[in-house]
Amino acid sequence: MPARNIAVLVGSLRREAFSLRVANALKRLQPPTLNLEIVEIGQLPFYNQDDEEPPPPPWVDFRNRIRASDAVIFVTPEYNRSMPAALKNALDVGSRPYGKSAWEGKPCGIISTSPGAIGGFGAHHHLRQSLVFLDMPAMQQPEMYIGGVDKLVDAEGNVLNDRTKALFEKFLDKFCTWIERNMRAA
Amino acid sequence: MPARNIAVLVGSLRREAFSLRVANALKRLQPPTLNLEIVEIGQLPFYNQDDEEPPPPPWVDFRNRIRASDAVIFVTPEYNRSMPAALKNALDVGSRPYGKSAWEGKPCGIISTSPGAIGGFGAHHHLRQSLVFLDMPAMQQPEMYIGGVDKLVDAEGNVLNDRTKALFEKFLDKFCTWIERNMRAA
Amino acid sequence: MPARNIAVLVGSLRREAFSLRVANALKRLQPPTLNLEIVEIGQLPFYNQDDEEPPPPPWVDFRNRIRASDAVIFVTPEYNRSMPAALKNALDVGSRPYGKSAWEGKPCGIISTSPGAIGGFGAHHHLRQSLVFLDMPAMQQPEMYIGGVDKLVDAEGNVLNDRTKALFEKFLDKFCTWIERNMRAA
Amino acid sequence: MPARNIAVLVGSLRREAFSLRVANALKRLQPPTLNLEIVEIGQLPFYNQDDEEPPPPPWVDFRNRIRASDAVIFVTPEYNRSMPAALKNALDVGSRPYGKSAWEGKPCGIISTSPGAIGGFGAHHHLRQSLVFLDMPAMQQPEMYIGGVDKLVDAEGNVLNDRTKALFEKFLDKFCTWIERNMRAA
Repeated sequence: MPARNIAVLVGSLRREAFSLRVANALKRLQPPTLNLEIVEIGQLPFYNQDDEEPPPPPWVDFRNRIRASDAVIFVTPEYNRSMPAALKNALDVGSRPYGKSAWEGKPCGIISTSPGAIGGFGAHHHLRQSLVFLDMPAMQQPEMYIGGVDKLVDAEGNVLNDRTKALFEKFLDKFCTWIERNMRAA
Repeated sequence: MPARNIAVLVGSLRREAFSLRVANALKRLQPPTLNLEIVEIGQLPFYNQDDEEPPPPPWVDFRNRIRASDAVIFVTPEYNRSMPAALKNALDVGSRPYGKSAWEGKPCGIISTSPGAIGGFGAHHHLRQSLVFLDMPAMQQPEMYIGGVDKLVDAEGNVLNDRTKALFEKFLDKFCTWIERNMRAA
Repeated sequence: MPARNIAVLVGSLRREAFSLRVANALKRLQPPTLNLEIVEIGQLPFYNQDDEEPPPPPWVDFRNRIRASDAVIFVTPEYNRSMPAALKNALDVGSRPYGKSAWEGKPCGIISTSPGAIGGFGAHHHLRQSLVFLDMPAMQQPEMYIGGVDKLVDAEGNVLNDRTKALFEKFLDKFCTWIERNMRAA
Repeated sequence: MPARNIAVLVGSLRREAFSLRVANALKRLQPPTLNLEIVEIGQLPFYNQDDEEPPPPPWVDFRNRIRASDAVIFVTPEYNRSMPAALKNALDVGSRPYGKSAWEGKPCGIISTSPGAIGGFGAHHHLRQSLVFLDMPAMQQPEMYIGGVDKLVDAEGNVLNDRTKALFEKFLDKFCTWIERNMRAA
């Protein structure tokens, strides 16, 4: 079986984003059955239905990238107790035009991160509410609220303690099972 | 007493947005004690902390517009069961730099709109969760989930039935009381 | 293959509850692969960890009923923009004692009902947030916000129009697929 | 000015509940302008509209207690990422019969507690969503997600470190201002 193509969306646009570190850590830890690739979202113009005919090339490219993936992992910080706008915009761009959502049926996993204690719980569950509408089977456990993230992963994506490493490995292991169960037949 | 300056944020960027119609309807119905002005949000680059020094001019202008207002009204559709990205981005841009949020202490009202029956409930309450963090006293009632909005207000902001007009007038009337109670002393 | 045992929880305790009507409608429409049984929740004392040793017999019976089921369907009204207490209590009772949750891994579907337009959206998504913690794979689509429910199903569980009947049948059909994918091996 | 009567609702029914410790700590720290009294909720039968005529005496007593208060403070743990059922039931009982809610217009503050890191964020914001419908002006800041609560307050309600004590005092101080602004004229 070839490795599954996993689109990884990182909610923060900062060059040194902690969520990017976590995404890189997952890439380092991925099993041979998964092929994680980060899909950029910062270049996408705000979704506006008026601009659909024809759509801006970055929208088209992004939609194609998502369609070509087997499943999705979201790694995101929390801004003001909700998702960053760039991540929400990626959801909106990928969901259109009406009836042609790129997201439909893609199984997914959700990780929220924060240097603080709460671990991005607010962003995490706002994202999950959108995933219901987008019809993306969302893995429930292990819940990934990664608090104190600045001390857990370094800039190269090395996980700095064994407990966090074990959690990330458990997440990836369960994710493999989840996506095999819930991917739609092509 | 001079009229209070109310910044109105419209969540949709569409030229013919229903939320824009509702914002215009509120302007037509506003009492002499309120001066509603729509503040544009579509021109704001995505928030990215890396870009703060110096901040892009549209961020600076927007923050100044919010600071100069006495209170805020949000009128927004729902995209994928949450806020549109453009509105979330406006919240994020206005909230920074850290410790200098333009939103702090501004009383506010929230209106969600939809052509469908649910009236944007999901976007409405996600927005409210952010307003807690932003320390904006949020009026609770009347709850404004404006479903079937396409049939309620025309393109010029005329309200098409008496019941909706009465609801909008009640909202504005209660809003006057709310902001007088909860505006901070200058 | 024998029919799957589906525990149906009804959020309202009213004898004439609309959610009970919907549950009865689902029973009438169920395919031969499903066996829906309503599990009572109104008799459960409030969860209190102090009362666990020994637990009240209604808690024990309820936990056993859930454990014996293959999957769960929740049908609930909204009270004050969230779940009814009786339903939340059933979740809490079934989740304990710690480490022995009766819910773990049971696939589930969620239906919210209301005589009003919004269809119980608030209760629906609060319930979904709990299901993440409870590790219950939750079907995403079709989203079931059943507004105007008083006009859709009669007291005997007859569905009063073809569109609603088709929606319920679609829900049950998708649910069959969902639970077969996501039930854990015994 | 006489002290304001503050009804304090504790979400947990455990005798040794951490939320009860926090409520007792607030009582110890209350300024002379506030008179905090814990209102019991564990004795309330589940809300069921069928039982309203006549209502059970505990419902009547509870409604009267809330009506006699000037404002409300909620202190609650999180059960399964939402409110405990006993607290939700108190909200529901107090909100009825229709049109005679005991809660209407009472200003309020919200504190969530947890021995874990996340501090009951999920319960906290579910509660806030109900408070919108109940028309209870809800103080936004300081946000009170009290994580690691088992190490912060002892069984007699003594706060065990200065930072937590200062936070509780700040909460009470802001609460005094909040309720004076937002109490309705009698």
